Amino acid sequence: MTDEIKIVEVKQSVFEDNDLDAQRLREQLKEEGTVLINLMSSPGAGKTTLLRKLAKEFEGELRLAVMEADIDSDVDTRAMLEAGVDTIQIHTGGMCHLDADMTRQGLLKLGSADYDLVILENVGNLVCPAEFDTGAAANITILSVPEGDDKPLKYPLMYETCQLLIVNKTDVLPWFDFDCEKLKAYAKKRNPEIEILFVSAKTGEGIREVAVWIRNRFF
Amino acid sequence: MTDEIKIVEVKQSVFEDNDLDAQRLREQLKEEGTVLINLMSSPGAGKTTLLRKLAKEFEGELRLAVMEADIDSDVDTRAMLEAGVDTIQIHTGGMCHLDADMTRQGLLKLGSADYDLVILENVGNLVCPAEFDTGAAANITILSVPEGDDKPLKYPLMYETCQLLIVNKTDVLPWFDFDCEKLKAYAKKRNPEIEILFVSAKTGEGIREVAVWIRNRFF
Repeated sequence: MTDEIKIVEVKQSVFEDNDLDAQRLREQLKEEGTVLINLMSSPGAGKTTLLRKLAKEFEGELRLAVMEADIDSDVDTRAMLEAGVDTIQIHTGGMCHLDADMTRQGLLKLGSADYDLVILENVGNLVCPAEFDTGAAANITILSVPEGDDKPLKYPLMYETCQLLIVNKTDVLPWFDFDCEKLKAYAKKRNPEIEILFVSAKTGEGIREVAVWIRNRFF
Repeated sequence: MTDEIKIVEVKQSVFEDNDLDAQRLREQLKEEGTVLINLMSSPGAGKTTLLRKLAKEFEGELRLAVMEADIDSDVDTRAMLEAGVDTIQIHTGGMCHLDADMTRQGLLKLGSADYDLVILENVGNLVCPAEFDTGAAANITILSVPEGDDKPLKYPLMYETCQLLIVNKTDVLPWFDFDCEKLKAYAKKRNPEIEILFVSAKTGEGIREVAVWIRNRFF
């Protein structure tokens, strides 16, 4: 892939039953041998910085690609390409989330069969993305320290639908009133099975543990 | 108002034309003598903390009430009531935004004619709330420093539809790569008329200027 930016303008699904379509996509990806992970968070929680660091952990081990979903702009795609990661830009045409068919349109443009692991960076939004199954094998949610420890109380579905919660920006914990124990309790209240990792994508602390989580689960 | 929490479970509008309905609500509020402001931001940008501080600025001067819109929980309403501000909780039933009729349902429950200024704290989301005119006299958007200076590039409509942009959490500027000049340029690119104020709701710095902005515009 060159550093020319590939942009897909995806269209909203024509399928009435997104859950069924997502299940179909999940099975296709399994046959193809590609693991798709759906990464969700608020705007500015650090998805792109985390992905840049995570890509280094898998270098020489897995063929990794990233799909950056945004309403507009390509700043994240440029950041990923600078880091040497195969990346395409998905423009949602104003839509606040991706459904399974929009995800499929991205995977087709990417050529997902050439990759072991594809990470979809969903639109920054704690509400709508949680309502649509993208066909991913796992959902990972990032919560950043400055957002506060009460987010699982306010955005229940986001925490109910993810398997891993990454608490990012732990490097600024001293400057915020963020109670890690409260956060854990609120997240477990929404989802008793949720796993939680504390990370600073800026300093790199905890990134290895995220890679281990993905490796143990899928490779 | 006692400290018992008033909760309205609002229903999605039955009106096909939200813009028309919003215009109607705006005119009703004008006749009633109530100014409605729609406050939007990402989750955790500091809307509630800012409102607590702002309420003090208007104490003894304006009759102020707040409507807290959330998918679930009443933590923000409790925080506002603790601060002695008349507040009701709007539950959106999973919806990611409020339209004009949902806002009207909240205003009815509140009894908006008893107030000079009503501030609607919209659902924390940079996408969907910007798509729906609530009937407010002004839209104010908060961007917090930890979210990054590139948000106007990624969420265009949020910046195009607001009259005032409040940059919050300036107290943590030293710990984040946030370029205030870049932010201004990106925001003005989306909306040349936008006004920008820098604030720390935590320390109270800049809160007076927000009150002045509202006063000059409406009172």
